[in-house]
Amino acid sequence: MDRPDIPDIVVSRLPIYLRALTRMALEGQPITSSHELGKRLGISSAQIRKDLSHFGEFGKQGTGYQIKFLVDQLRRILKVDTEWAVALVGAGDLGHAIARYNGFSDRGFRIMLVFDNDQAKVGTELSGYLIHHTSELSALISEHHVALAMVAVPAAAAQSVADELVKAGVKGILNYAPINISVPDDVHVQYIDPVVHLQRMTFYV
Amino acid sequence: MDRPDIPDIVVSRLPIYLRALTRMALEGQPITSSHELGKRLGISSAQIRKDLSHFGEFGKQGTGYQIKFLVDQLRRILKVDTEWAVALVGAGDLGHAIARYNGFSDRGFRIMLVFDNDQAKVGTELSGYLIHHTSELSALISEHHVALAMVAVPAAAAQSVADELVKAGVKGILNYAPINISVPDDVHVQYIDPVVHLQRMTFYV
Repeated sequence: MDRPDIPDIVVSRLPIYLRALTRMALEGQPITSSHELGKRLGISSAQIRKDLSHFGEFGKQGTGYQIKFLVDQLRRILKVDTEWAVALVGAGDLGHAIARYNGFSDRGFRIMLVFDNDQAKVGTELSGYLIHHTSELSALISEHHVALAMVAVPAAAAQSVADELVKAGVKGILNYAPINISVPDDVHVQYIDPVVHLQRMTFYV
Repeated sequence: MDRPDIPDIVVSRLPIYLRALTRMALEGQPITSSHELGKRLGISSAQIRKDLSHFGEFGKQGTGYQIKFLVDQLRRILKVDTEWAVALVGAGDLGHAIARYNGFSDRGFRIMLVFDNDQAKVGTELSGYLIHHTSELSALISEHHVALAMVAVPAAAAQSVADELVKAGVKGILNYAPINISVPDDVHVQYIDPVVHLQRMTFYV
């Protein structure tokens, strides 16, 4: 981590700002304010200004933010001003949906390698991607210097897949399997589990 | 909200505890400690004890937690000791993967209604669910008293779908569309956007 002074919670909000600002830009809007952005996101304007102030001075008092400029800055800060190659492990229903999702490329990511352990799938194509056997995972990921991976395998297989990914040099894992995985300190893990999100709402309903 | 004194961040961790404890129970383990659970999750044992203490006394000093008992308590606290009917809006690739996912039922949720605005899909089945036209959304959701919905539609359609869901009485929306949606204060929204998760890692890699 090259900026140990910035709280993770601040970093975690930047992609949300980037997403909303990108949409405003697409809608043709040139300028926004922390107030307007906050209203759109349900976050206080003070929070937004404080978060952004960690990285520099992006707006002027009274005139707000130039949206296109702020989008460029956020892409640079999050390092998505270049494209990241991503490996996808698991070519089942979820892997299929991920491979066909067209929202990666314009936001900094491109699926480059797809793996599955089902010999019947290996050698076939998934949404244009050749499916490789997971036994090739380590060699191919090392060869292509892929630093990010999405794991869409059953819970029971997730830890061993993560171990392989880490050995191959992957530094960030987006884990769709409903289980916590252990990785070394220099590897980052994010989780997507719809049930966890649903259970975060039922408490209140 | 009936427990306004409990921070959202605490509630957000409970499903993670429940998931890990359920797995331990499945593995046949009868007892755990906050130390062991914390190690598995990368959370400090003090944090876990503090989080749980909001809801009562679940373990004994020196003997740890009875896993099965704690699982039951967490399911009760999160209100997933009964099954919630969930509506799914969007029967594309992602909706397909969601409908086929078999991880909902044993964790408190059951898809009950599926909607799409594509007349070619209406009347066909998606993984055993009859697809209804979104024009029927309001009537069917009200009729079946469905309180939760998953939104797997394109970003441009998400807000109008959310508006319809809210009008029909839905109190919790899990939004897969890559856009923030506005809802009344008594409606809860959770987001799943893989790109946001990937961008939360690239900052550090």
